[in-house]
Amino acid sequence: MKNCIVAQSGGPTVAINASLAGILEENKRSGYFDTIYGALNGITGIFDKRFLNLSELQNNDSEFTKKLTVTPAMFLGSCRYKLDTEGENPEVYEKIFSLFREMDIDSFFYIGGNDSMDTVLKLSNYAKRTGSSVKVLGIPKTIDNDLMHTDHTPGFGSAAKYIAASVREIWHDTMIYHVKSVTIVEIMGRDAGWLTAASALAREGEGTAPHLIYLPEKAFSVPVFLKDLHHFLDKQDNVVIAVSEGIRDKNGKYLSAGVSTTDTFGHTQLSGAGKALELLVKEAFNIKVRSIEVNILQRCASHLASATDLKEASQLGAHAVVCASEGLSGHMMVIDRLRNDPYTTQMAVYPIEKIANGVRSVPLSFINDEGNDVTGEMLAYLNPLIEGEPEIIYKNGLPEYLHVDHLFR
Amino acid sequence: MKNCIVAQSGGPTVAINASLAGILEENKRSGYFDTIYGALNGITGIFDKRFLNLSELQNNDSEFTKKLTVTPAMFLGSCRYKLDTEGENPEVYEKIFSLFREMDIDSFFYIGGNDSMDTVLKLSNYAKRTGSSVKVLGIPKTIDNDLMHTDHTPGFGSAAKYIAASVREIWHDTMIYHVKSVTIVEIMGRDAGWLTAASALAREGEGTAPHLIYLPEKAFSVPVFLKDLHHFLDKQDNVVIAVSEGIRDKNGKYLSAGVSTTDTFGHTQLSGAGKALELLVKEAFNIKVRSIEVNILQRCASHLASATDLKEASQLGAHAVVCASEGLSGHMMVIDRLRNDPYTTQMAVYPIEKIANGVRSVPLSFINDEGNDVTGEMLAYLNPLIEGEPEIIYKNGLPEYLHVDHLFR
Repeated sequence: MKNCIVAQSGGPTVAINASLAGILEENKRSGYFDTIYGALNGITGIFDKRFLNLSELQNNDSEFTKKLTVTPAMFLGSCRYKLDTEGENPEVYEKIFSLFREMDIDSFFYIGGNDSMDTVLKLSNYAKRTGSSVKVLGIPKTIDNDLMHTDHTPGFGSAAKYIAASVREIWHDTMIYHVKSVTIVEIMGRDAGWLTAASALAREGEGTAPHLIYLPEKAFSVPVFLKDLHHFLDKQDNVVIAVSEGIRDKNGKYLSAGVSTTDTFGHTQLSGAGKALELLVKEAFNIKVRSIEVNILQRCASHLASATDLKEASQLGAHAVVCASEGLSGHMMVIDRLRNDPYTTQMAVYPIEKIANGVRSVPLSFINDEGNDVTGEMLAYLNPLIEGEPEIIYKNGLPEYLHVDHLFR
Repeated sequence: MKNCIVAQSGGPTVAINASLAGILEENKRSGYFDTIYGALNGITGIFDKRFLNLSELQNNDSEFTKKLTVTPAMFLGSCRYKLDTEGENPEVYEKIFSLFREMDIDSFFYIGGNDSMDTVLKLSNYAKRTGSSVKVLGIPKTIDNDLMHTDHTPGFGSAAKYIAASVREIWHDTMIYHVKSVTIVEIMGRDAGWLTAASALAREGEGTAPHLIYLPEKAFSVPVFLKDLHHFLDKQDNVVIAVSEGIRDKNGKYLSAGVSTTDTFGHTQLSGAGKALELLVKEAFNIKVRSIEVNILQRCASHLASATDLKEASQLGAHAVVCASEGLSGHMMVIDRLRNDPYTTQMAVYPIEKIANGVRSVPLSFINDEGNDVTGEMLAYLNPLIEGEPEIIYKNGLPEYLHVDHLFR
């Protein structure tokens, strides 16, 4: 008897369930695992013995993996759980691996971001040290695109497509009035500017949005920003600025720290970089200014997913099953880009200890010298990742997703 | 020689250009007008003599109206311009009608919301009084759905579809953690709750989002709200609340007035109802709370347009050409709903003086007694309006819209 457990962790993306679907589909083909269990709410589902029999769901519904592929966020739920080191808490490791033995677990797949890869590292090291045959493999996902040693991460392409489409639509919305206006779009990515950079794909030609792009990788200077903006406002009425939530000055101080919200009880909350810039621009130019915080739809809008992203996420899941069947452990699945024209990738692996706890920032060659736009290199990198529209099932006018009653009822 | 001028005004929606396309297509069929001109930036384009020859654009590109139909916001640009009364400013009327004569204008079509219908009223009255043969007709649009004497307004169905899809995706995003959380979604609609009500369409079954819905049509009570919320938090971890930006207490005081944002310069800005509720819930329950202000995409996300909405918007444009050719003036095009099953409508007209400056609120029978949800009547009303997905043209992974260089270069 050879079973496996899959769990999902960290923040949502549009592509996480596609990796889960890839695991199920590859196993249907190869039959390597007898049963695939899904642990609910990440690794905490293992502690609490909360499982879904995914093989059963797959067998009972021939459309299951197809629907799963386009369902956003985590079908298995998520957790924010930092696994103690073995030194701090040996019991938790014993508990997990004793359950693995009890359930005839051959492999454990963790689909997640940086914290999840830390868990993969710890569990695979424990297995190795104790002579357990359980293979522990990581499958990446994050809209931030900041995991090391993979060309990009599943979830990023769809988020990038969402950002680019949104900024294009925002441009059409904001430029209709014949009066001076500035629109600031704040995009997720505290430490890495990949997603904000993707706003550049929105451009429809010269003079169209976004006009200025600021990433956290380059120090933000208020006087230089105001000069940049002045330059554009001289040329045209409506200017759109894409800004990462994590922009900071040369001392590393977040721009957002300058603005606070006070409620009726006197509590203070930090506002975002977008709001901070809004107030700054209002003060400096005394014109119409709006800041838009792109909400969590940038990470969960399956209706605007990238087909390329979902395909690769699924391929990484499938690759993990192949790797496990070949006895591999302690690795994360990665995407290697072989060429851009035609865009070609291969699924590969990388040792987990070289990935966990690192952050991949935007290289400076992808940002222009002025620090207010991206370069052609960045565009060439981004372009293929947003390509293609998956088939979304609509019912009664709305995208139809798999229900997640098992998570909350 | 018989020409016409079309202009667009007010806030953007996804369906305004579909009405423009409907005018062009119907005229291509009937040939009633020799040339259709588009005034840029609403009626101010007439003052400034800024026009596009739309007939030419249509003749030069066989796909023009098809692309126009799915292009968001205003292809002709917009304005916020309150036309003086004839008593206040007779010159402006003389200027407009003298230009009409000069350009052989037979009809003027204004696509817009409440303020634009006020302009239609004034211009058609002037024409009547002065014996001008120019026909002035209004074509409605507003995501707020608050124009009188039409079953619904173009633009609303697409916005409703966007809101419902978004709340469904937000539900998948927010319910993945096994911890108590409250998510507040603030939706546009200062005086009418139609769009917030559309969030109810997001539900996938019992216990799914949205759990509570608050519209401006019923007085909002903080203690009752906290009790409502408590009830849901007792039953499940994650609660999603849809709230109109315009909710107010029994004295008509906006909830948003309670919270202010202070910038580094000491300026104070009012925050929205969502942020106000966020702080309130945090104070009362001390759990994870997030408020999401659905941004302007709710009115410009053509990639998620309702095919029903675009079709009807186009039909209203076509109907306006028919009405003008029959000599009608001083009316707004309206949609009459004949039945729900199958959903059937007819395009009709209504006297402009009974429409301008009125607001159509949500009837109380569409809101439940507790004031925290909508009724089955509301759902039956809403359901057909979001049906169908138009063909969106994607290029390089993004929706391809008509460029609007004529507005800003």
